[in-house]
Amino acid sequence: MVQRPDLPAGTGGRSRGPVPGQGPEPGAEPYPEPYPGPYADLSGATAGEVLGEYLSRQATEFLRSLRLHEESASRPESVSAAAEAVRLLRRSARRIGAVLQVYRPLTDTARADQLGAELAWLAGVLGRERMYEARLDRLLGALHRLSSAPSSGPGGTASTGTAASAATATASGASGGGLGAGVARAGALLERQLTLARTRAHSAALQALGSARFHAVADAVAVLASEAPLADPAASATGERALRALPPLAEQAHRRAAQAVEALPLTRARQSYNGEAFAHTLAVDGELDAAWNRVRLLVRLRRYAHEVIGQDDPALAAAGRALDRHRDAAEAAAAAAAAARTPRIAPTTAYALGVLHADQRHEVEAARFTFGRLWRPVLSVPPVAVGGTAPEGAVPDPEPVPQPVPGPVTGAERSGRGGG
Amino acid sequence: MVQRPDLPAGTGGRSRGPVPGQGPEPGAEPYPEPYPGPYADLSGATAGEVLGEYLSRQATEFLRSLRLHEESASRPESVSAAAEAVRLLRRSARRIGAVLQVYRPLTDTARADQLGAELAWLAGVLGRERMYEARLDRLLGALHRLSSAPSSGPGGTASTGTAASAATATASGASGGGLGAGVARAGALLERQLTLARTRAHSAALQALGSARFHAVADAVAVLASEAPLADPAASATGERALRALPPLAEQAHRRAAQAVEALPLTRARQSYNGEAFAHTLAVDGELDAAWNRVRLLVRLRRYAHEVIGQDDPALAAAGRALDRHRDAAEAAAAAAAAARTPRIAPTTAYALGVLHADQRHEVEAARFTFGRLWRPVLSVPPVAVGGTAPEGAVPDPEPVPQPVPGPVTGAERSGRGGG
Repeated sequence: MVQRPDLPAGTGGRSRGPVPGQGPEPGAEPYPEPYPGPYADLSGATAGEVLGEYLSRQATEFLRSLRLHEESASRPESVSAAAEAVRLLRRSARRIGAVLQVYRPLTDTARADQLGAELAWLAGVLGRERMYEARLDRLLGALHRLSSAPSSGPGGTASTGTAASAATATASGASGGGLGAGVARAGALLERQLTLARTRAHSAALQALGSARFHAVADAVAVLASEAPLADPAASATGERALRALPPLAEQAHRRAAQAVEALPLTRARQSYNGEAFAHTLAVDGELDAAWNRVRLLVRLRRYAHEVIGQDDPALAAAGRALDRHRDAAEAAAAAAAAARTPRIAPTTAYALGVLHADQRHEVEAARFTFGRLWRPVLSVPPVAVGGTAPEGAVPDPEPVPQPVPGPVTGAERSGRGGG
Repeated sequence: MVQRPDLPAGTGGRSRGPVPGQGPEPGAEPYPEPYPGPYADLSGATAGEVLGEYLSRQATEFLRSLRLHEESASRPESVSAAAEAVRLLRRSARRIGAVLQVYRPLTDTARADQLGAELAWLAGVLGRERMYEARLDRLLGALHRLSSAPSSGPGGTASTGTAASAATATASGASGGGLGAGVARAGALLERQLTLARTRAHSAALQALGSARFHAVADAVAVLASEAPLADPAASATGERALRALPPLAEQAHRRAAQAVEALPLTRARQSYNGEAFAHTLAVDGELDAAWNRVRLLVRLRRYAHEVIGQDDPALAAAGRALDRHRDAAEAAAAAAAAARTPRIAPTTAYALGVLHADQRHEVEAARFTFGRLWRPVLSVPPVAVGGTAPEGAVPDPEPVPQPVPGPVTGAERSGRGGG
């Protein structure tokens, strides 16, 4: 077992404070840090012990969130608590799945692969309601911002509209050269379409949580809390020292992410106003968006893999948030374009949706720019060499590390889906 | 008379080569450099001599362009030569007017003010045709770019569409999720509206060139070629040495421009993806656009004022081009919004115009960003002190000079109106 000082409950998580933009929603309890020990704490433990400890913590968190959801889902006054419970469920499910995938050579692969697939299904089903809610928030906020008068003071900051204040968009939008009615109608159209999608997603999530399939997943996670699906120490590296067995696999996850990033047109994305994501707004740009989304998933996998060995890179977390924002904006742009294809809408409505679509593609470009500035091709903490030799596969990338320039905060930085 | 080495005709202009993006249109003869002598050449001349020399050169150029226009305007095969002649006419008219304004204390103010007002009228009337032509080019090019498929290669550059290739936008735009028809219709609508405006501007320009008012201006410029409207040397500084009398007035023009720039929210404009020009696309943002346009005029005035004393700042010329691009994009955005208010257009047309409007506001933001990176608050060449004391009013601005970062070339860099 990894030795770590016993902290009073809640203190360990609170002492560092939640990461801005990544913490729980206001009003929620602070959730425990994934693995608070520094890198050196691995020295006394085996790989199996470290993996088991991490998976056990995530499984416990999963079960705690499930209880929280069961307590709050039935009562109308605790809707936000139920939503927060779903968010934490997904959070643990993503981490367990990622760790089983990255450290697969150390697992009982049959059990691990099966559980990973079921957790991916669960995270997907549970995430959709929040996704539509956040998309509507994002689009109504953008409509409000686009139709509000600019702050004219030097260096003034633009008001970042929220869904609540979007209702006032009609009044200020009326000054937009007779296009105010279009803004209000576009908002109403999006609200109708995305609320319908959200309601359906809510029903699907409730149905999933009541299904036999879900109960099987919950049972498997309960087993995980006491016994991780690890490979036989005699036939694998689970009995080796964690410092020797784990970093090469984490490094492999990093290399896979780095290779996917390399394939992106990142040189261009790092230039301001390169126009890449924006330029072809009226054409289908699904291919490049998909490549960026693959990078998002690989960077997230890499981040979770490094959580296990106690390496937390704030710049990487920020880069991950930029990728979340990229995905959110790209999907919001597609939703605006889809709404514009609704039959029999007024020209002013279509016009406002066109501006909104372009606005979200602008956000996509800004998110790519931010990521390009934040991404570091090599690890900031080099793997510790064991016995004078670096672990296999841990050769650092020979590329120079560009000085990361803090990306400007452009619009709503929160990803809107409670990732992290 | 200022002493300068006699160069074979055309060599003086060609030896330095036309400044990229600022030179004459392809096929046109290279026009003479405004004032090729270096700063030190002023040392032997009086202020009146230097001013007279500059005005005489510009007046000669004006009359040469007028003859060129008269020769080419009547023949259909020389339409481009006539357009180039009009461009050169405006070029000289702008410079004469600017110099009479900046160096007003050294002029016969009654004559100078009257001529300046008439030249401003002429430059305005003559510029409108080219303005509508460039606006249509810009908007059709943007529509083409927005509806074309992105180049997927890493670091690939976007195709910068031209009016000629905009006709193919329909085909590729058809892939844009059923919005291709809207792109084609939006292009046709803009073409109809802006071609009508251009035809009217062409007639107005021809009418102006045949008017008694124009002939009076041409006569006044012909007088200027031999005798500048300067103040009596006994009652003014025209008899003083040029190095003492001219730099303070040029510096005053610089300070006026610098003060107008200071009033802009430049700190924000220097941040990538600040969203300032873009954020309020659906609201009227005329006030800030107008402030930027005032800066454009003052920076141009400052540039012409420094041409007289042989100071040419390439960074300032580039900053001026960014301001031209700002004006062009802002006006193109307004034209797209105006087209969207045409009654009885199809929703897909309105949608494409909304995207186009937002695209041009994106260009506005990019132009502000480029200007913010290029603008230097202090002169790069400090005024030469005479007799150990700096000329009055030539105290350099105490602000630090930020290292100018070369702005990325975003979209079409040429201003489209042949400024320079």
